[in-house]
Amino acid sequence: MDFLARFGRHFEKINAELQRSLDSSVPLIREMGEHSLLGEGKRLRPLLFMLASGLCGYQGEDVYRISTVFEYVHTASLIHDDVLDDADIRRKKPSAKHVWGNLAAVLGGDFFYSTAAAIALETGRPKLLKLINDTTLRMIEGQVLELMHTHDWNLDKERYMDIIVAKTAELMSAACASGAIMADIDEEKVDQLAQFGLNLGIAFQLMDDILDYTSSEKTFGKPVGKDLREGKITLPLIYSLADLDPKEFERLLDS
Amino acid sequence: MDFLARFGRHFEKINAELQRSLDSSVPLIREMGEHSLLGEGKRLRPLLFMLASGLCGYQGEDVYRISTVFEYVHTASLIHDDVLDDADIRRKKPSAKHVWGNLAAVLGGDFFYSTAAAIALETGRPKLLKLINDTTLRMIEGQVLELMHTHDWNLDKERYMDIIVAKTAELMSAACASGAIMADIDEEKVDQLAQFGLNLGIAFQLMDDILDYTSSEKTFGKPVGKDLREGKITLPLIYSLADLDPKEFERLLDS
Repeated sequence: MDFLARFGRHFEKINAELQRSLDSSVPLIREMGEHSLLGEGKRLRPLLFMLASGLCGYQGEDVYRISTVFEYVHTASLIHDDVLDDADIRRKKPSAKHVWGNLAAVLGGDFFYSTAAAIALETGRPKLLKLINDTTLRMIEGQVLELMHTHDWNLDKERYMDIIVAKTAELMSAACASGAIMADIDEEKVDQLAQFGLNLGIAFQLMDDILDYTSSEKTFGKPVGKDLREGKITLPLIYSLADLDPKEFERLLDS
Repeated sequence: MDFLARFGRHFEKINAELQRSLDSSVPLIREMGEHSLLGEGKRLRPLLFMLASGLCGYQGEDVYRISTVFEYVHTASLIHDDVLDDADIRRKKPSAKHVWGNLAAVLGGDFFYSTAAAIALETGRPKLLKLINDTTLRMIEGQVLELMHTHDWNLDKERYMDIIVAKTAELMSAACASGAIMADIDEEKVDQLAQFGLNLGIAFQLMDDILDYTSSEKTFGKPVGKDLREGKITLPLIYSLADLDPKEFERLLDS
């Protein structure tokens, strides 16, 4: 049974809020939003926020609206990542960059980052705002770190972990912690939910990196074998490289 | 006499704050910041904030730090604009994109937008935060509008004004209004300073667009004749096009 299907009732409401919040007088921005935000995504980050806020007893009517913050940040970072990676397929559809060009994709990502902030501002909670902004800064640092280590065949496990924590796990952590912050519960529980989200995010990215080597485009929903082609060194490769004898490793570097 | 030289004492302090606020554990981000932020800029937007807050009687010690918010937003938007325009010279130096590539420039811009928000958050003033975020959204809309009207020979004066208000004037307006917000003075004066900044920004962009046709790279500090080459339709061209007879205009469209 599909685990996520259990939360189906949340999906519709999250998607309805995403639709409602897509607000710009500029048609191209609305089109990019409809394309990039309202697709087939799993809505994992909004869902984490929903579940965490429910767990902590938050009852506000704005819960679905706030949950979209995490989808906006995630989508903005994906769109900019596509500019970087020259990726043409995202969520089984052509990427924003592919449809509108680099130019519009950069601005679309910018707009969605700021839309996330606009929705977070509505809560009037400085702690939430600060968490979301700090998380965004960390995510960008993670993307830059990853970029700096492209084709770095000596990347070790520790640095790889730094990268996936920053680029993936921190946002899931923030989604969980934000649920606790909205419920005004004590700092210790906020930290515990942050820790849970962080570990979930690490596990998620590990799986994503493994599936890039072991899955197929049909089941994975995006091209496989991409990381190696793009010189993105991930854990499966780090382990494989460690098994090479020095001569084999040299041959690889020369190739 | 150089008008801006009268405010020389502010420059050093603004630059010192920019230096201090460049805070990332990732070396490439610091390098991009040093390159893009700490150059020869006029610091016009921080200065507008300084003068407006002084005018309204704000005495806080954080005034220079807050002023950098407007330079961060401005720099982030320039860096992303360079990605778009394929511009290789900015402020008499090679652009960030030219030095590090599209990839890093997109992330660098992202980081500086979020740094602006982080500094604004320190003030604990929701009104200021909202103004800055709304302004960022409008600036991005302005950039998208401009992009949509590239090579649009039928662009009229009204639409051109929409574009320059959004992409340039709104940030100068926000810098002025923010000075008043920090001083906690009445709404009417906030609006008046916002209006002053808006008109100054419009005048500034009009001049910038005229100088692209009439100045030289040496005095202008960036390449001239760029707008026409890139299909960016600005006021001087709109007026010139209006003077063409229908046959000449058709010949232009065919060329």
